[in-house]
Amino acid sequence: MLLERIALADLARGAAILGSGGGGDPHHARLMCELELGRGNAIELIDVDALSDDALVAPCGWIGAPTVSAEKLPNGCEPILGLRKLEEIKGAPVDAVMPIEVGGANCFAPLIAAAQLGLPVVDCDGMGRAFPESQMVIFNIRGVRACPSILTDANGALALIDSDDNLVQERLARAISVAMGGIAHMVEYPLTGRQAKDHAIRGSVSAALRIGAAIRTARRAGQDPFAALFRALRESGLYPYAGVMFDGKILDLERETKGGFSIGRVLIEGFRGEGNMELEFQNENLIARRDGKLCASVPDIITVMDSETADSITTERLKFGQRVKVIGASAPAVLRDGASLPVVGPAAFGLRDGYRPIEELNDWDDS
Amino acid sequence: MLLERIALADLARGAAILGSGGGGDPHHARLMCELELGRGNAIELIDVDALSDDALVAPCGWIGAPTVSAEKLPNGCEPILGLRKLEEIKGAPVDAVMPIEVGGANCFAPLIAAAQLGLPVVDCDGMGRAFPESQMVIFNIRGVRACPSILTDANGALALIDSDDNLVQERLARAISVAMGGIAHMVEYPLTGRQAKDHAIRGSVSAALRIGAAIRTARRAGQDPFAALFRALRESGLYPYAGVMFDGKILDLERETKGGFSIGRVLIEGFRGEGNMELEFQNENLIARRDGKLCASVPDIITVMDSETADSITTERLKFGQRVKVIGASAPAVLRDGASLPVVGPAAFGLRDGYRPIEELNDWDDS
Repeated sequence: MLLERIALADLARGAAILGSGGGGDPHHARLMCELELGRGNAIELIDVDALSDDALVAPCGWIGAPTVSAEKLPNGCEPILGLRKLEEIKGAPVDAVMPIEVGGANCFAPLIAAAQLGLPVVDCDGMGRAFPESQMVIFNIRGVRACPSILTDANGALALIDSDDNLVQERLARAISVAMGGIAHMVEYPLTGRQAKDHAIRGSVSAALRIGAAIRTARRAGQDPFAALFRALRESGLYPYAGVMFDGKILDLERETKGGFSIGRVLIEGFRGEGNMELEFQNENLIARRDGKLCASVPDIITVMDSETADSITTERLKFGQRVKVIGASAPAVLRDGASLPVVGPAAFGLRDGYRPIEELNDWDDS
Repeated sequence: MLLERIALADLARGAAILGSGGGGDPHHARLMCELELGRGNAIELIDVDALSDDALVAPCGWIGAPTVSAEKLPNGCEPILGLRKLEEIKGAPVDAVMPIEVGGANCFAPLIAAAQLGLPVVDCDGMGRAFPESQMVIFNIRGVRACPSILTDANGALALIDSDDNLVQERLARAISVAMGGIAHMVEYPLTGRQAKDHAIRGSVSAALRIGAAIRTARRAGQDPFAALFRALRESGLYPYAGVMFDGKILDLERETKGGFSIGRVLIEGFRGEGNMELEFQNENLIARRDGKLCASVPDIITVMDSETADSITTERLKFGQRVKVIGASAPAVLRDGASLPVVGPAAFGLRDGYRPIEELNDWDDS
């Protein structure tokens, strides 16, 4: 499938929702992809089963604080520089690219490189959403090596990491991203086609696309975009439960850029005195509590959206006074099993709340 | 010249003095070299003119805080891992190694690799002493590229930096060294034989050796080791002025490990009420003030030594109550010219004092 201009806008809308508040606002990344289309370059989305088993697949994404990425723009050459280095190390050409995480701007990182290099984008990712740390990815959970990992920045600097330890990779990558100014592009977890088929979260890019398209279509038809969103999430097969968790106005916001992350909390008050909801975030929204009671937690998806437009609001765009709906969706099943929860569940973030599936905590009609 | 056990001890003694308090205490590094000799491996020191113009010469050294290096010991494989990566990048074997800085433990970094790989060590370095930051090296001053630079740690992790900007290289390398636990080995400023001949500070390794030997010989003969030291410094041709700047007891000491450096100040009080001397350091001693008046500043050498034994005391070994002499020596002339002072003089460290040659500030008999 070739991605045209409308598809890019749908994808941006869908990816921002799946980002759970993180992955960076995709606005600028989408514009860069539109620029590539305007230059006559094509962006093709292919199924993971179209890969040969020995293909070299390069996951791409940005590492750093979304607050920084909103102000320090990329120059557009970062992905190519990293991919060229990977080819040099592997002594083989990259056959396809994919997003390391489908959420937010990271969904677009491989698209820019794909357009420039004429490579296909594989319809899959490693997170089914966005997570703040490199090791929070299905490939790490399944024992794939993160290295060689290559970071590149807007000034043409490059750093290569090689370690057998995927936690060391995250620690070094984080430090490098901070030294590169708070945001860097990273090619990591290079995969064979076989590994992509065995481990990747399949269909997540086209799911984001369809989710975004559903909102667009509903808006145009004068229908409720939220109802369309929840239907699209459920029908994707990846996110079987979805719904509104809270409706209100942002009353208080704490946010700082620390250790290479955007960290903080936001308090939302109901319009008619029906209590409040508090979210904690580390790039992504991690946990939602209604009147102090757990409503959702990682790896389930928690996204703040504009009440009227159904545009999602990433954590770096939250502002006092915004009228919002907090929506939730169940994460892909592979992220909620016993192997994944220690890596991407509440405990991985030092949260004391044990994980409880979002559908047990919310009274949604999932018909 | 083959370096035997006694030469290693002399070199450690001399390198610690030239380190200006930095470069790390060479004790452990010397033991590792002795171990290599015990395994039947040889360490050969060669003149820079013995290199062919197109030889690949790899400067080696440690980056980080000496306070950390005193507790977090290397495993001995870090230099080899870095050199192998350089060979892979260059597509050619390394022909010789050299210390990036002759001061302190860094003098020994290439010796360990040389013994293990059967490579010669070139009798030269890039600093003629030790400096805390990577760009404070004659090769940077002369426009040589710092990259590719390769950092390796005791856990086998590797990070490669590639940037045209030598200040970016320092910033990234510093962040990586902190993420690697506060200390890492670095291969940087890869040189051709021609570049080594044109730019390196020649004869600094053998100068350190002779300085260390002079102290040993004087001690054995019951002569004043300090007089022997100053004579050896002057006769080296590299350090034409040298002498005692102060004699006293350490009264106060502030030291913290911050941003990957050991930073602090030490106050030394005269024995018979003859005022005090204060030193400021960032890994290395940077400036000496006697009763508030400038006595010496970078790039000239300021080293604290035990009053009795004439053992030098690196900044991480300073302790309250030590009885010490503060000695000074003029830096090699190339570090004191108009091209070098902005990079390695007081202004490069944010010190307000303008540079004044140490021999103008001290009343030494340099006959």
